[in-house]
Parts: sequence; C-alpha cells; structure tokens
Amino acid sequence: MTVYNFSAGPAALPLSVKQQIADELFDWNGTGCSVMEVSHRSKEFTDMADENEALARELLNITDEYAVMLIPGGARLQYSMLPINISSPQGHAIYAINGHWGKQAIKEAGRFTQVTSTAPISDDVYANIPAYDASSLNQNADYFHYTSNETLEGVQWHRLPETNGVPLCCDMTSDLLTRVFDVNDYTMIYASAQKNMGIAGITFVIMKRDMIGKSNNLIPTMTDYKTYADTRSFYNTPPTFPWYVMLLVLRWVKAQGGVAAIQQNNQLKSSRLYDFVDQSDFYLNKVAPDCRSEVNVPFWLQDESLNQKFLAESSATDLKALKGHMAVGGMRASIYNAVPIEGIDALIDFMREFERVNG
Amino acid sequence: MTVYNFSAGPAALPLSVKQQIADELFDWNGTGCSVMEVSHRSKEFTDMADENEALARELLNITDEYAVMLIPGGARLQYSMLPINISSPQGHAIYAINGHWGKQAIKEAGRFTQVTSTAPISDDVYANIPAYDASSLNQNADYFHYTSNETLEGVQWHRLPETNGVPLCCDMTSDLLTRVFDVNDYTMIYASAQKNMGIAGITFVIMKRDMIGKSNNLIPTMTDYKTYADTRSFYNTPPTFPWYVMLLVLRWVKAQGGVAAIQQNNQLKSSRLYDFVDQSDFYLNKVAPDCRSEVNVPFWLQDESLNQKFLAESSATDLKALKGHMAVGGMRASIYNAVPIEGIDALIDFMREFERVNG
Repeated sequence: MTVYNFSAGPAALPLSVKQQIADELFDWNGTGCSVMEVSHRSKEFTDMADENEALARELLNITDEYAVMLIPGGARLQYSMLPINISSPQGHAIYAINGHWGKQAIKEAGRFTQVTSTAPISDDVYANIPAYDASSLNQNADYFHYTSNETLEGVQWHRLPETNGVPLCCDMTSDLLTRVFDVNDYTMIYASAQKNMGIAGITFVIMKRDMIGKSNNLIPTMTDYKTYADTRSFYNTPPTFPWYVMLLVLRWVKAQGGVAAIQQNNQLKSSRLYDFVDQSDFYLNKVAPDCRSEVNVPFWLQDESLNQKFLAESSATDLKALKGHMAVGGMRASIYNAVPIEGIDALIDFMREFERVNG
Repeated sequence: MTVYNFSAGPAALPLSVKQQIADELFDWNGTGCSVMEVSHRSKEFTDMADENEALARELLNITDEYAVMLIPGGARLQYSMLPINISSPQGHAIYAINGHWGKQAIKEAGRFTQVTSTAPISDDVYANIPAYDASSLNQNADYFHYTSNETLEGVQWHRLPETNGVPLCCDMTSDLLTRVFDVNDYTMIYASAQKNMGIAGITFVIMKRDMIGKSNNLIPTMTDYKTYADTRSFYNTPPTFPWYVMLLVLRWVKAQGGVAAIQQNNQLKSSRLYDFVDQSDFYLNKVAPDCRSEVNVPFWLQDESLNQKFLAESSATDLKALKGHMAVGGMRASIYNAVPIEGIDALIDFMREFERVNG
C-alpha cells in the first residue's frame, strides 16, 4: 500500500523528486560523483544555483528589486537576523500574533529591538486572527511582522494585514509556494525549506535590496543579509544537497502548472477534509472558518480517550505522522504540496471507518 | 573506470555510504519514508541522533566534560560564535596563522574582541608554521586559536601549539577524524562536515561545558552555544539529512578500525604521493617537510604553461577536481579519509605518464 506522510516538517517530498535523487546519486550531471561530493565552486554546481534562483524568481514573480538568498539556521535564525539587520535597540517592530511561531518570533526580536504586538498575546491555543486597530500602529516602526500560516494551530491569513504604512515582513515557512501572492506587497519574506521547498537545512529569504546593508549594529558576517546578497549565498560552503533538492522541487512545482495550479489543488484537498470533519459529530475543528489553513488541518476526536487508538491504527494503515503538536493536542494532517489528493481520500476513508467502529 | 574525487570539499564520500543512502531513500528504518521526510522529533530520528553522538564520543574519546553540538552555518559561523560566546570587546584572543582560513578567522574575530597573532601575518602563500615565543603570549587571553590543517596551502600542525596556559581552540575542519589526538588538550574544537564527516550543512563542535553560557554579550539564540548544548542541538529543526549522512560516515570509520587505522592509511597515502613528487624534477611541493598535510597535497608543475593540459587530461581519466585554489595556484589532491589508496596509485600513474609525455 502507498504510504501517505502527513508530517508537519520535515515533510513529504514528491515521489518523482525522490526518484531523481536516487537516479543521480552515483553520477550527477556527468561528474561521476554525487552532487553531495562536488565543490560548490564547480561550474556544474554554480549552473545549478543559477537555475535554482531563476526558477524561484519565475514561480514567485520576484523582480530584481529583491535579493533572494539561501541562509542556514532555519526560520529560528531569521527571528534574530531580521531585527539585528533592519532595526536597532532604539528601533521599534510590530508583531501580529496568531499562534506558536509568532510568539517565538516576537520573543527573540524583543531582545534586539522594542517590540509591540497588534493585540494582547494569548496563552490559549489560537483559533483565529485577533482584530486590531491599524490606525493606532506606530507609523515609524521599522517593520511589521506576521506568520502567514501557523502550523500548530492551523490558522492562516487569507488577506494582507493592515500595517499603517509600516514595511511588511512575513514568516511564510509553511505556506510559501502553496498559494499565489504578490511579493511586491512585502519588504521581506522568509521560509525554511522543509515544508514545501525541499528539505531541512536552508531558509529561503526574499528581501528588498534597499533594506540590506544599512544597519549600524555589529553583526556577525554570517548573520548579515549583505553577505548573502553580495555573494548570491556563496560566501562560504553552503548546504549543497538541500540546495539541489530545492531545485528538484521547484522543477516539480513548475511541472504541476506553477503556484496557481498548486493552490487550486491545495484548496480542493483542504476543503474536502474540512467538509468531512464539519459534517461529523465524532471529529472537530475549532478554527474560525475565515482563517483555516489550507496546508495544516488540525482536528480533534470528541472522545480524546480514543487518541492513541486512532494514531496506532492510522499509522498501521500507512497514514503517517497524524499526531498533533503537544502544545495543541489532538491530530493534525499537514497536507503540503507533495501530499496528493489520494492521500486525503485515504485519510477520510480511514476516519469514516474509525468513526463507524468507535462512534 | 572508477572515478576518484580529489575535491577539497564538499568531498568524496565512501562508496558504501552512498550505497546505503540509495538503499534507504524510499524506506528509512521502516518508516515508509526517506529520512529527509521524517520529523526530527520522531523516535526514529532521535534514536539516530543518540547513536550519532555516542559514536562520535567513542571514536574521538570525548568525555562528558565536553558538550558535542551540531551547528549550521559552516566553520565561517564559528569564526564569530567563538569570540562572541567566550570573549568580549574588552577581552583578548590569540591566533596562530599558517594559511588562508586562519587569516579569515582572525579577521572576523577582530570585530568582536581584541586579537593578536603569534607572528606577523604574511601576504604570501604559507609554506610552514611561523615560529613564535610562547612565553611572551598574554596569559590572560580568553583563548588561543589555530587551524590544525590549512586546506589551501597543505600546511598541517603535527604537534600541539604552545599557548602559555591560554585555553586552546582549534578549527579542525579538514583533519578531524583523520588522525589521533587528545580532546582533553582543548577547550573547543570545530569542524564543518563536508571533508571527513559527511556533507555540507553542519559543523561539529566539541566544547568544554564550563565554557558555555558564561557570556555577557547579547547573542542571537541561534548563535549561542548554550542553545545547542542544552537541547542536544534540537532547539529547532536541524539539517536532518546531513545528520544522517554523518552517522553513516561514523559507522564507516568504525568499520575501518577507527581513527588510528584511518590515520595509518592516510599516512601511507600521503607519503606515497609526496615521495613521488619529491623524486620528480617535473613536479614540486613547496611545503616544509615537518608540516606537510596528510590530507591536502598541493603540487605544482615546474612548467605552469602545462596546467590546463594537466587538468583536462586528468579529468578525462576520471581523476576529478585536482585544480589548486586560485589563491595558491597549481594543483591540489585532497586525499581525505574516503579517497582510497587505489586513488593515489591511479593519480601517480597518471602523473608519471604525463611527465613522460610532456617532460
């Protein structure tokens, strides 16, 4: 039986991507070596990096006004790189919080600049995006940050936040490449790769060039955006294999018809699953309908004593990694780009049968 | 014909390691997924990480007095992490320089602490380790740093530097796991993985626990050793695939008989190549015999006009990546652990024939 992997990240890769990795493992591009064994300064590798950047720009419509960078350290490192590069201890940054990662981001940023949140930060599990009065935001703030999709809670923005003119920055770790948006609305966007862009080890960063290299802070060279922008991320030996997997995934996205076609499929997948949960008295989703995530679908069993049974039986049926994050509980189906509609159908079939037997 | 890869890094992997990667690409550890697709919080992955740490401690004889960490960002990031974590703007660090990477390290460190070098820093290509008077070193310095093997110049320390009691730190990027040494002589050791420990994307760091978490500097969480030591490098999603490849390489090292057996083989490999170069009037190595590298063997053609011909013909004979670094010129054979003695013999055969035809 086919395995369907609902892991929240590191997450499923397209099958054809894994097949190509296997095919090229002993001879990549005629080198007689694996891509893992080839110098990042070789023509083969720099050509690959050129294609990678060009394809990312094409798929996301990124103009030359923006630098694109591949930075190690995960989204977590961006939580500090952003304030140390474009703010200061005397500066100010605004954070909109709608879940776990936003809370982590504002906490780290608050060590390097003055931060405020658009609304009081809740200790509870978020089930919506708190409203705020945009006209009261400090227009002189250095930036406005939000998390477009909270993977734990399954709370996603389906509109642009109002910022009162403050430059917009976004952690798109879990939904970049899953939906159409306009890069030009942003000053900076970042996403670690292990959800929809490949595997763990690199973070994709898009940043307006005129924001780079302006800081008066003393910044380690490896945490300065200028280092990456000036060298096209070739300042030191980059994580070459994750770069390569990213290119394979971008080619796959293009072959699917690009981001718009991917989004259409993601909407089909998520609405089918939400519709099933909503019609059931056995399962439950608590998130407000206008901010439900198209890529992370948390759901709960009304009878939580059945949780372990649900997880054991689903895993035995080759539906993997459905356990919700411990901070939220219940179940979570992460249905990123690489999870096919057949995986949703298999999950719904299982859930229906589990409800019939245990309901 | 077999391809021999003399790349300086990313570098050759053992063939059996690549074979195992291929074998497990569609089903790692019974998960039905690739290791790239599995959560770092899963039992399968944390078990793997446990084995990885235990095996590294066993092969290198690392006691519990030391934390071992896997940090992204390459050795380059360590150039700043070291001074910001264990020194201060009012502090002092001493650097012994014997090549390109040492120069880069002191330059970055000098942005965050006061640095001195043991001897004047040369603009020329290093061909030895400059002598210095250890008794004149500042005994109150926070640390003493050196690069045990300079990959560009092929200049390697075959003894411990004298530090006048100052805690010893070492960039062992290109020779960790290639030779026996005593960790207890050091306060801190680091090595990025893409030479002898796996693939690019992680840096292996060994650090005395009592040095960690003592800084008064304001440090980004992701560049604080405490973050990695306290969480066993699980603070955020780590580069999971490079972790996995590291474990496969460590298992391979153990199967070879451990580091002592590996070193014996490396000495055999390097001395065979040096002996050939030394007896030739056609080739030349400029490094002082007492500090020649056992893992990077630079050599020059007396007639440099033949360089392009040498590179084209060697590559066509499946002897790959022999071009020297542009800062040094000539040729370089990086003969790390994964390059077998047969590769050295094939290289010598080629060099002998090239000399016969062109000499």
